[in-house]
Amino acid sequence: MPYEFKMTHRVEWAETDAAGIIHFASYFRYMEVTEHAFFRSLGHSIVSKELGVGFPRVHASCDFTYPLKFEDEVEAHLRVREKKEKSITYEFIFRKVNSEPPIEVARGKFVVVCVARDGNGNMKAVPIPEVIARQIEVAPMDE
Amino acid sequence: MPYEFKMTHRVEWAETDAAGIIHFASYFRYMEVTEHAFFRSLGHSIVSKELGVGFPRVHASCDFTYPLKFEDEVEAHLRVREKKEKSITYEFIFRKVNSEPPIEVARGKFVVVCVARDGNGNMKAVPIPEVIARQIEVAPMDE
Amino acid sequence: MPYEFKMTHRVEWAETDAAGIIHFASYFRYMEVTEHAFFRSLGHSIVSKELGVGFPRVHASCDFTYPLKFEDEVEAHLRVREKKEKSITYEFIFRKVNSEPPIEVARGKFVVVCVARDGNGNMKAVPIPEVIARQIEVAPMDE
Amino acid sequence: MPYEFKMTHRVEWAETDAAGIIHFASYFRYMEVTEHAFFRSLGHSIVSKELGVGFPRVHASCDFTYPLKFEDEVEAHLRVREKKEKSITYEFIFRKVNSEPPIEVARGKFVVVCVARDGNGNMKAVPIPEVIARQIEVAPMDE
Repeated sequence: MPYEFKMTHRVEWAETDAAGIIHFASYFRYMEVTEHAFFRSLGHSIVSKELGVGFPRVHASCDFTYPLKFEDEVEAHLRVREKKEKSITYEFIFRKVNSEPPIEVARGKFVVVCVARDGNGNMKAVPIPEVIARQIEVAPMDE
Repeated sequence: MPYEFKMTHRVEWAETDAAGIIHFASYFRYMEVTEHAFFRSLGHSIVSKELGVGFPRVHASCDFTYPLKFEDEVEAHLRVREKKEKSITYEFIFRKVNSEPPIEVARGKFVVVCVARDGNGNMKAVPIPEVIARQIEVAPMDE
Repeated sequence: MPYEFKMTHRVEWAETDAAGIIHFASYFRYMEVTEHAFFRSLGHSIVSKELGVGFPRVHASCDFTYPLKFEDEVEAHLRVREKKEKSITYEFIFRKVNSEPPIEVARGKFVVVCVARDGNGNMKAVPIPEVIARQIEVAPMDE
Repeated sequence: MPYEFKMTHRVEWAETDAAGIIHFASYFRYMEVTEHAFFRSLGHSIVSKELGVGFPRVHASCDFTYPLKFEDEVEAHLRVREKKEKSITYEFIFRKVNSEPPIEVARGKFVVVCVARDGNGNMKAVPIPEVIARQIEVAPMDE
């Protein structure tokens, strides 16, 4: 069962700032793009109409250790850290591509909650649909 | 009747790029923020539920003539250039604040179309609601 | 001595997403804009050439508890939580404006490090300049 | 000689807005990302230190004709429309991927100027370096 996913991102010009390096908020974008690609790899869209649920985040964090520059490539390594009835915790380790030895440049975390809309359109936490839950596994603690 | 609106924006850090200046796409953001503030100044939200219409853009353009830097302040001067049954054309002139003589740094244009959702949720051009249309006037050609 | 700063932000259209609410990453933008306004309130630019230092973040996090919508106004309440020789920790409490009683919608944190460029252009942690350090105080633990 | 380049983009969640569709400014981002990939396909970085030049835009525009949604894929087709001593004009045609017949969803334009920094760090238009200029050709007018 899948518990991880890898995806490479390139630092685009609009993602840099006047310090000449990547703007920190770009990592949160990479994390979300990677999470959604992970869902597609399972055969689902994160906002699938059939499932009728969404996965807004209730927590997002990132530690930054190395300043990437324009056109650097970075691998986002998503791993499922926790799976509860109504929430999932992801960890993201970012490593600069083409660096030898590999450089870890950032490490992030998302906690997402499975929600559905009630009759008034308000979001309410609900159990993760079985078709998703049975496909996702918590990653082993190997690093 | 209102045909213009002015709003000052500050170049924020996330809006700069590795060239040390404002990223060009920031102007499109300023233009949209200014347009929505113009609507609020008329007593409406651009996505008002009562009106049941929206104003997506079908055209956006901007010419850039001076490189603003972090924390520079810029005045966006919106003027209504055309008002048709179902569309509005806005011009935006951007002037650097606290420059003497004033420096025009960019000049942009939006064409927005008034739309409503049909039964299938698709957007369809509709006449601008009277309550909006009667409040907006085309600016005189004084510059 | 200043240990806090308040600034109101409006949820702009480009900051919403297809769920009809604010995109989570907008909060990181608000946090940074507020931090930079705090510095200006002390008479400094966060990237002042005179000081020759910058304040990149090594940590950013946020917890999200309430879904803001387009044009909602939110107050960011910055408080200095820790002041070390080379780093500052800020906490940000976000409260929806015009809600009675006030609704806390998110709570975030930045850890920023004071850096200067060495001869090769690489960033290196350095003590916070005295002119800044003596103006900033850790907030009392009153909440 | 190269006069065109194609690149597929996916509409990411952060690029949508509360209307449930792509935010218009996302196209300007796709245009820039495509332009920079075109330069890499020629063996250059758009901000190459060896060349010592940059290519800021002096004009950006886009017409929008079809509302893309989250996870839609769109092909950006860049074509060189004009090549002058110091500037290049690009046209971008966006077509929805996996639509039959193909749907053109937007059409954009960039005018970029080749600049170098003078002794004071100010940008000044200069001739496009020969190594770039001789690789780029104006596209035939076949559509």
